[in-house]
Amino acid sequence: MNIALAQLNYHIGNFDSNTAKIIDTLKTARSNGADLVVFAELCISGYPARDFLEFREFIDLCEKSALTIAAECTDVACIIGIPTPNTGPHGKDLHNSAYFIADGKVQQVVNKALLPNYDVFDEYRYFEPETEFACINFKGHRIALTICEDLWNTIENPLYMIRPMDKLIEQKPDMMINIAASPFAYNHDEERIAILSDNAKRYNLPLFYVNQVGAQTEIIFDGGSLVFDKQGELVDELPYFKEVLTYYVLKDDATITPQQPVTLMPERQSNIEQIYRGLILGIRDYFYKSGFKQAILGLSGGIDSAVVCALAAEALGAQNVMCVLLPSKYSTGHSITDAEGLVNNLGCMSETVEIKSITDAFETALHPQFEGLPFNIAEENLQARTRAVVLMAMCNKFGYILLNTSNKSEAAVGYGTLYGDMCGGISVLGDVYKTQVYQLANYINREREIIPQNSITKPPSAELRPDQKDSDSLPDYDTLDTILMEYVEHRKSSAEIIASGYDEATVRRVLKLVNTAEHKRYQTPPILRVSPKAFGMGRRMPIVGKYLS
Amino acid sequence: MNIALAQLNYHIGNFDSNTAKIIDTLKTARSNGADLVVFAELCISGYPARDFLEFREFIDLCEKSALTIAAECTDVACIIGIPTPNTGPHGKDLHNSAYFIADGKVQQVVNKALLPNYDVFDEYRYFEPETEFACINFKGHRIALTICEDLWNTIENPLYMIRPMDKLIEQKPDMMINIAASPFAYNHDEERIAILSDNAKRYNLPLFYVNQVGAQTEIIFDGGSLVFDKQGELVDELPYFKEVLTYYVLKDDATITPQQPVTLMPERQSNIEQIYRGLILGIRDYFYKSGFKQAILGLSGGIDSAVVCALAAEALGAQNVMCVLLPSKYSTGHSITDAEGLVNNLGCMSETVEIKSITDAFETALHPQFEGLPFNIAEENLQARTRAVVLMAMCNKFGYILLNTSNKSEAAVGYGTLYGDMCGGISVLGDVYKTQVYQLANYINREREIIPQNSITKPPSAELRPDQKDSDSLPDYDTLDTILMEYVEHRKSSAEIIASGYDEATVRRVLKLVNTAEHKRYQTPPILRVSPKAFGMGRRMPIVGKYLS
Repeated sequence: MNIALAQLNYHIGNFDSNTAKIIDTLKTARSNGADLVVFAELCISGYPARDFLEFREFIDLCEKSALTIAAECTDVACIIGIPTPNTGPHGKDLHNSAYFIADGKVQQVVNKALLPNYDVFDEYRYFEPETEFACINFKGHRIALTICEDLWNTIENPLYMIRPMDKLIEQKPDMMINIAASPFAYNHDEERIAILSDNAKRYNLPLFYVNQVGAQTEIIFDGGSLVFDKQGELVDELPYFKEVLTYYVLKDDATITPQQPVTLMPERQSNIEQIYRGLILGIRDYFYKSGFKQAILGLSGGIDSAVVCALAAEALGAQNVMCVLLPSKYSTGHSITDAEGLVNNLGCMSETVEIKSITDAFETALHPQFEGLPFNIAEENLQARTRAVVLMAMCNKFGYILLNTSNKSEAAVGYGTLYGDMCGGISVLGDVYKTQVYQLANYINREREIIPQNSITKPPSAELRPDQKDSDSLPDYDTLDTILMEYVEHRKSSAEIIASGYDEATVRRVLKLVNTAEHKRYQTPPILRVSPKAFGMGRRMPIVGKYLS
Repeated sequence: MNIALAQLNYHIGNFDSNTAKIIDTLKTARSNGADLVVFAELCISGYPARDFLEFREFIDLCEKSALTIAAECTDVACIIGIPTPNTGPHGKDLHNSAYFIADGKVQQVVNKALLPNYDVFDEYRYFEPETEFACINFKGHRIALTICEDLWNTIENPLYMIRPMDKLIEQKPDMMINIAASPFAYNHDEERIAILSDNAKRYNLPLFYVNQVGAQTEIIFDGGSLVFDKQGELVDELPYFKEVLTYYVLKDDATITPQQPVTLMPERQSNIEQIYRGLILGIRDYFYKSGFKQAILGLSGGIDSAVVCALAAEALGAQNVMCVLLPSKYSTGHSITDAEGLVNNLGCMSETVEIKSITDAFETALHPQFEGLPFNIAEENLQARTRAVVLMAMCNKFGYILLNTSNKSEAAVGYGTLYGDMCGGISVLGDVYKTQVYQLANYINREREIIPQNSITKPPSAELRPDQKDSDSLPDYDTLDTILMEYVEHRKSSAEIIASGYDEATVRRVLKLVNTAEHKRYQTPPILRVSPKAFGMGRRMPIVGKYLS
């Protein structure tokens, strides 16, 4: 049997585009001799379709797309992912399903049994888990078809009560197929390979695994679909962050022969290279899928906005990136020259808008209220907010989308101005700690100096008052980022973090900063997720709470 | 047996305050002769504690609080709600539990079986459902204790596979207790009474139901705890929106004698009165629980900001409400006199800050970029954003919290300026349609004119360009609100809404406006929830999607 794996980029709710892409791929695969083409989990609707799934009309459109695709399935079979109505008397309205389509119609429906409901996942909000299991017979093979999480219950202290493959193996399948929508995190590829290899070995079956690729607002799918032989050895690892269609001949003795050259990745990409590629895809898809072409951002001369600018230029083309220099009376000379250097290196558009006359106008207008009171955070934030208003005015006038440039360290401790530098359509670095931003800058400069070296080496500063440095109010970033990683990603307690060797007062202060900044993060743009625990939908905290705050 | 119902207001993660309140109540109830005091679901942690629950330290603090409470339980027993570790080999880390405490220690643990995971609820994210059931024996009674949703599976096409009471009834209990955290919606009280009465009748048992009261950021608990006899007749309905401790003697023949005067509500409060009281509680608790006292808002002379101002004055005291008039060159004379009239009627603080000099400064600074281009939404938004920056500067200088004044109709169709009038710490009217805002205004004026009649009768306008009216770009609010209600709350399809008699083009335009404003709503403040479907955590939509957009 010739099996094709279609690792494609879908768009939530865009039925015309998703259906056309699937049909085009089917035709190509058929002409290349494929018997069966495997698409990803919920490819019909895109993933995650969230509460669109609560609209019966949306579900009907999914079914209509599937029937259109089925009509094309002559001389080729396929597996697609689709939400379907739960026709039973109990439970949630839907199943997260796979259709096995052959001879022009849906031959069999397989429903997902293990429904992730942690981090960014909300599947139990919509779907009823399956409790009955049946293999698919096709061309003399018996296929154990599962959906994503269904294979992820092999760990100790499992999250779910059953293992679907333990049921399916009783029916003596000779191969496994798993269709997935498995989001990117910089450390997820190795875990995925280990879990899936373990499944192939455990059940002594070859395994074909198809993931989505592409970004859906904040959630990035990295592709990296996988093929294992029945010993659990990797036969193929598809490229990351791009669409691809590959072919494999599976013989009756369960050996697998790839029909194209295979480059098994000799060593994993570094975390930073993965983050870089993930962010590029995240920016590109955000603009493409929302119908915009051009980005705008404020360029401060600092490292965060420089890295965002370089990423945007790579994702959208430098000609589609507008950089705005917004100097104030506290901006230092090198801020402007560093920003100009970057613009020149990349070839972006740029404008300069001095904000002093505007902040002066605010201060004059507020003079009756503020008279006699010392300069404080009110005046600092005025500058950040004035910049945001200028940038948003240019968005409204010219159709740009504003890129947010806050990093994860700042977002964590609330070191940023709400409605100021925390504005934007999408946050590019909101899941990238400051220490990782430095690594990204060096990665961007790996072949030539794009980001001026001075932006990398100078002490970070918000430049909202004379001689301000980040280190005036925050621990050094190495310390801060380690504490944040332990607290945010590993969910360690303050006692555990202190016990691992950090100063108690610093730990308590950092955790308190994190927990009291929840109201700010609530109103920030969606953040491109590149870690196992990003701020946003995957981390849901009370705003008016009193824990560690 | 003398049973006390403690309908109290908790604070998420504030263990000291929650524990002290529970112990004080226990002491009072004991001195008044109570044998058993019933507190609400998850009263120890507050509800919803969201991802705080993922921290082991948080769970340990819950247990510590419970032990402190247990030590006080001499000569009185109690039932409290608490998250507890799942000690089984499979499943989620926690249970949503009730402790039955007597003689100074935890005698029995009951876990919730039906875990809501829709709308604002995420219980399956944290909790493993219970599958085994046991009654509690106390003072010759056998108590069937369940937790909130456990009694909500009596409807047709049930969401869950089992009914916990069907199991418990086999053990021949002689009474039911249900502890709850059941959020307010303006139509929820009647539904609650009907479902619980049905349970009492169905199982032929008296039922004591204790709900929380108080707001946790956007989610408002309305109290309204209930007592039914075994015929399902209402014996008592506790007050809404306030804390109360009541007593009942339950005899062996299952008759119930309230120990205080009972006022069964002869008729339901109107939706608008309920919304009014819910919003007052929502504002008050947001400020109290986050440690702030004073609110600020921009007063336009229009109805939305007038209603918010009146609500804030009632919730916080007029002396704690700062009204800022922010006229621009497009503001009409009546806007200022109407705003001043309101300030005088309420006795709030007020300031006036003219924004013309500031918007002029923006336009001058942007002149090189904008030269020759016509006035458009960029200049309109400049005004709204300038106002927001002024209000936020006053927040930063004086410690106010900004109240957002957008209504649900505007929020739905994106008729508002991000980082402008969409700013604020909490949105007061974001779940109140414009037509309901008018009803609220009339309710506020029920005894005397607080909101100037002209604010109610004049045509609504954002006043961002000369002679602008809301009706220039939106259907009339009666039509708009009905379409929105059908789409947002009832999740009807466009075809269904059109079939019910609305103009097709209008329906399609409104639905498209709703679906393309998702990116704006993502960044708005938390919205006090008063309906069954509010924007925010209870309605999760893709941002970059393509459905009806």
